[in-house]
Amino acid sequence: MLSNSRLAVLVTLSLVFCTLPFHVRAQQVDSLPIMPLPAHVERGEGEFLINGNFGVALQGYKEPRLERARQRFLDTLSRETGIPLWREAVINDPHFIIKVAGPSASIQQLGENESYHLKISTTNVQLTAANPLGVLRGLQTFLQLVRVTPKGFSVPVVVIDDKPRFPWRGLLIDSGHRFVPIPDVKRNLDGMEAVKLNVFHWRFVDNQGFHIESKRYPLLQQKGSGGFYYSQDEVREVIEYARDRGIRVVPEFDMPCHTASWFLGYPELSSGQDPKNSSAIDPSRESTYKFLAVFIGEMATLFPDTYFHTGGDECDFREWEGNLRIHEFMQSHSIKDGAALQAIFTARVQKIVAGRKKIMMGWDEVLRPDTPKEVVIHSWRGPKSLADAAHKGNRGILSSGYYIDLNQSAAEHYLVDPLGDNSLTLTPDEKARVLGGEATMWTDIVSHENMDNRIWPRTAAIAERLWSPQEVRDVDSMYKRLSLVSEKLEYYGLRHRLITDEMLQRMTGDPDPVALRILASVVQPPRIYERQQLRTFTDFTPINRLDDAIPPESETAREFNVIAKRIASGTATSEEWRQARDCLVLWRDNDAKLQPLLARSFLTEDLAPVSRNLSQVAEIGLKALDDLKEKRLVSSDVRQRNIEFLKSSAKPQAVLLLMVAPSVELLVEATRIN
Amino acid sequence: MLSNSRLAVLVTLSLVFCTLPFHVRAQQVDSLPIMPLPAHVERGEGEFLINGNFGVALQGYKEPRLERARQRFLDTLSRETGIPLWREAVINDPHFIIKVAGPSASIQQLGENESYHLKISTTNVQLTAANPLGVLRGLQTFLQLVRVTPKGFSVPVVVIDDKPRFPWRGLLIDSGHRFVPIPDVKRNLDGMEAVKLNVFHWRFVDNQGFHIESKRYPLLQQKGSGGFYYSQDEVREVIEYARDRGIRVVPEFDMPCHTASWFLGYPELSSGQDPKNSSAIDPSRESTYKFLAVFIGEMATLFPDTYFHTGGDECDFREWEGNLRIHEFMQSHSIKDGAALQAIFTARVQKIVAGRKKIMMGWDEVLRPDTPKEVVIHSWRGPKSLADAAHKGNRGILSSGYYIDLNQSAAEHYLVDPLGDNSLTLTPDEKARVLGGEATMWTDIVSHENMDNRIWPRTAAIAERLWSPQEVRDVDSMYKRLSLVSEKLEYYGLRHRLITDEMLQRMTGDPDPVALRILASVVQPPRIYERQQLRTFTDFTPINRLDDAIPPESETAREFNVIAKRIASGTATSEEWRQARDCLVLWRDNDAKLQPLLARSFLTEDLAPVSRNLSQVAEIGLKALDDLKEKRLVSSDVRQRNIEFLKSSAKPQAVLLLMVAPSVELLVEATRIN
Repeated sequence: MLSNSRLAVLVTLSLVFCTLPFHVRAQQVDSLPIMPLPAHVERGEGEFLINGNFGVALQGYKEPRLERARQRFLDTLSRETGIPLWREAVINDPHFIIKVAGPSASIQQLGENESYHLKISTTNVQLTAANPLGVLRGLQTFLQLVRVTPKGFSVPVVVIDDKPRFPWRGLLIDSGHRFVPIPDVKRNLDGMEAVKLNVFHWRFVDNQGFHIESKRYPLLQQKGSGGFYYSQDEVREVIEYARDRGIRVVPEFDMPCHTASWFLGYPELSSGQDPKNSSAIDPSRESTYKFLAVFIGEMATLFPDTYFHTGGDECDFREWEGNLRIHEFMQSHSIKDGAALQAIFTARVQKIVAGRKKIMMGWDEVLRPDTPKEVVIHSWRGPKSLADAAHKGNRGILSSGYYIDLNQSAAEHYLVDPLGDNSLTLTPDEKARVLGGEATMWTDIVSHENMDNRIWPRTAAIAERLWSPQEVRDVDSMYKRLSLVSEKLEYYGLRHRLITDEMLQRMTGDPDPVALRILASVVQPPRIYERQQLRTFTDFTPINRLDDAIPPESETAREFNVIAKRIASGTATSEEWRQARDCLVLWRDNDAKLQPLLARSFLTEDLAPVSRNLSQVAEIGLKALDDLKEKRLVSSDVRQRNIEFLKSSAKPQAVLLLMVAPSVELLVEATRIN
Repeated sequence: MLSNSRLAVLVTLSLVFCTLPFHVRAQQVDSLPIMPLPAHVERGEGEFLINGNFGVALQGYKEPRLERARQRFLDTLSRETGIPLWREAVINDPHFIIKVAGPSASIQQLGENESYHLKISTTNVQLTAANPLGVLRGLQTFLQLVRVTPKGFSVPVVVIDDKPRFPWRGLLIDSGHRFVPIPDVKRNLDGMEAVKLNVFHWRFVDNQGFHIESKRYPLLQQKGSGGFYYSQDEVREVIEYARDRGIRVVPEFDMPCHTASWFLGYPELSSGQDPKNSSAIDPSRESTYKFLAVFIGEMATLFPDTYFHTGGDECDFREWEGNLRIHEFMQSHSIKDGAALQAIFTARVQKIVAGRKKIMMGWDEVLRPDTPKEVVIHSWRGPKSLADAAHKGNRGILSSGYYIDLNQSAAEHYLVDPLGDNSLTLTPDEKARVLGGEATMWTDIVSHENMDNRIWPRTAAIAERLWSPQEVRDVDSMYKRLSLVSEKLEYYGLRHRLITDEMLQRMTGDPDPVALRILASVVQPPRIYERQQLRTFTDFTPINRLDDAIPPESETAREFNVIAKRIASGTATSEEWRQARDCLVLWRDNDAKLQPLLARSFLTEDLAPVSRNLSQVAEIGLKALDDLKEKRLVSSDVRQRNIEFLKSSAKPQAVLLLMVAPSVELLVEATRIN
């Protein structure tokens, strides 16, 4: 402890700040500043002003869900504007008329009409839809159009005719690896509504935990959940909450593998000699199917949706093949291998599910030559699996390419199409079997705390892929609109933009850790599965380090890369030269400020070499800028040494990628050799 | 719209940033980095580490509230550390033992024992208390002690014996002027628990609205609430929520004035010829008391607390005196004026309240020579009222000086003592009648959205005044600890630190409005009632302008003032000279960047002259720094002109005070005249 109180007032001053975010305003985007882009837009002149006189009226078909949607719309619009419309609009003359032709299905169905017609003039707004689902979609479009102008908050004059491309547009949240509290689930349902997603795929169980209440087999949650599970009342509440937002809830109970947590309460289900070391259900016992018939029956009643996901992924067949009893069963029934045994299991489970008037879905592995045509294939392997399924007559959805836990860029996800390259080879009927896709929020390396920063805003880009016409593929436009939508999502309570800074503060104990923020803005967690190779994750691993805190994609590094390319190719403006220099100076000088901060916390100590590398990379970059500017010739030895250093700096360190190193390498490579 | 997509990527670079926050770390505070400071602390050597093995056990007396407190403690500790203790601590060996002797009262009583003993060694933690209330207080102390170190998250070795100075430590939230949604109320109850406040004074009704359900007189909320009121179930839920946190809920129904909203449903209660223009209950009719007996009876049942607040403030007696019927009533009963008539009303109401076994409280106005001794006086006038009441035998609490809606500094509130200067003149018995105080969050000029930034962190300073020993009055120490506690309060979900930036983004439509943030950091809303003179507030006024967004107290301006004083007095270090110069350069150059941004939104247009003033003030400051440094003589004319400009710049403009102008004036005044 310092005894001098003046010393305690640490003052950070004179920090040269380099920020390269997209300072995009709604008015600066060519297309409408919204996401997903509508199917058809006709622009007009002028704007409709939103002020304290704003009111909304429902005409035509009415139901309580529409009234709640209206109030939720007013709540969000009040947050967007600061005008207390949530009260006023109740008493005002309506300038916004919602006309609904009739009801939607009492249980939301795949492929229901979600189209809407939104007509905004300078004096009023009309939203018409065949049913409440279209109203929900149109209200979100309106909310995204709101911007502030010198005249007030307004939306542009426009006529929109909109409908989705794919009927299945989902987000998977994995409450199996780590329990995700209900408020975190609900907040993300709000985000889903904002970007017109319509399926919440809720996964409850994995080896790590059994996180839902079964009344028929209560030992499942009593022994398997560590005390944290959703009661059936809570599940029903979430289903209602989702229905209000036009979102179906499809449950997943992954079987026969990833099931270790079932065996804590019911060891007789397990394949292993020792249930404690087993992660696969025993498919050779009749008692297994009796149990599953009761359990699936209970869950099929709890979840009203027509679709029921039974997983089926990633079985390690050695557990069956190494069990003498199961081995004998296979031999006596002429089952040639584990895959064939799983197929038998799947067929039995499918009959149970179908007996409950539900349609089974499962991961790629459940697709076999004799898989019933009604089974929906969920592909974690790629669009080709879906094309194969479609050829065989099975419908499918895509998640390969939409694994938002793996820290890929929004652009990468955005360009993945459920039809892949198969558009040309599929018949119209086969194409129609490709129902859409789901972003997957696995929680083995993410907690409910930082989940929002993995889901948002990138899932909005996936939502656009699934909703908007196939030809909407402009990555630049996507990034600009993504930045605007990311800001809007804060009005829905999402925490993706807040969490980074909160976690940096926690890591350092400093309420304003500026120097760490600068380092954080140019690093990314390693992509795909490299991160798990560099750091061990169990479901109890604290998620509180820098690679947890930062967004999966560095906006600063992406923007710097654009400028570096232009400098290297000789097309940069003088402003861009100045920007590049300012950034590099900031990064070079940051290390001296950051090192004392890093030494104070066990969570930041290992960042010291990353910070030093940033400083050296920046120094090399500044030298390259000078060389380029002065057209100086550079010794090839020095250049080679620098390039080698930059390449090694681009490799993961402290589970982080220094994203500006490759851009500086471009600069160095543009210098001319002596 | 710009058609060139490159132009849309606006890049802000090379911004020289001047930040002067308190970068205080817990380890840098002399006393414990907590608030309120405990009554007695014994420091030791070493620290207790919090890691994944941490567990908590309850010993002795048990009740469900304690179990919930334990889980809530673990939830908060998990957020503070990122370690998923909320699950793990369930299964770990306990290193933290809580021992409780017995229960507290089934309905929390004024003056119950809240003391606790907290002993932290390097290997374990013991928290002992006479009842669950002490446990709640001690757990909050522990949470505030947590900091990050090179070894891990830890708390220091310490022995604390703690108890409150005053038994009544409250926060008033006014749901009368503006309805405050339940989540906003609950979040602030969490904040109250964090700083050991124990009374939630909940005010439901004002002229603007009747925001609670009456089942006996349903037209009150049906006509008087605009559709927004608390159901009785919701009220009971909040009372339970508060009880879990050791907080009593004292309702206020202000009468006989501020009651216009009652008359929308029940015009027969009103004094006016025209109930629509009346804001006072008619005290001359017997039917009034029949109504109130039923209404108070209903509410006295809903709210279990012993105390029942009936308001009684600010009656405009002209409404009674101008009503012929009431005037005749006064004459026939020899009632000499409105105040006497109110006294009769108060006495009748007091009998009704007492008949329900409740103790009435009211604002200063209810204290009259014949006021029953049991009535508690709530002073909005000052400590002297309380001393007067104490002399007469009445107990009282203080809110004068704790009006957190009026944008005073934390220091001002902090130095207000409920005993005021009367400590010496009051007998021990009289002193004991001064029960404590309440911070008051009136909502006529604040909404539920920006409420947190008015309440926090300053209310923590008031909480310290009411809890800690009287001699704890060091303002420097208070500010340092306030800064740390402010950060901790984010872990309770409070939005005081987030809201400013969110509102600046909304005002500008810019996701990162840096230049506006710089202006915002050096302005404050005008203090006391000056703000309402400069801007008209109705209960429908949008709360979305800069004076709503900024905190009541500018940390940057306060710190700059410290440095300016030291420069003026010749005691500044060279580092402080540099800091002052950097800030002034930043402020001088900010205007050119800010003006284009301001022109884009109707919410920022009127800030243009304020921004220009900041630039000119900074320019004068830089000149003064040069003059001082060079010991140059200055023309007295120029100096006088500058001082006049600075004085005029310190006056409110666009409902804002430019807080650095007086500091620059200090610099100018320190220059020597030619």
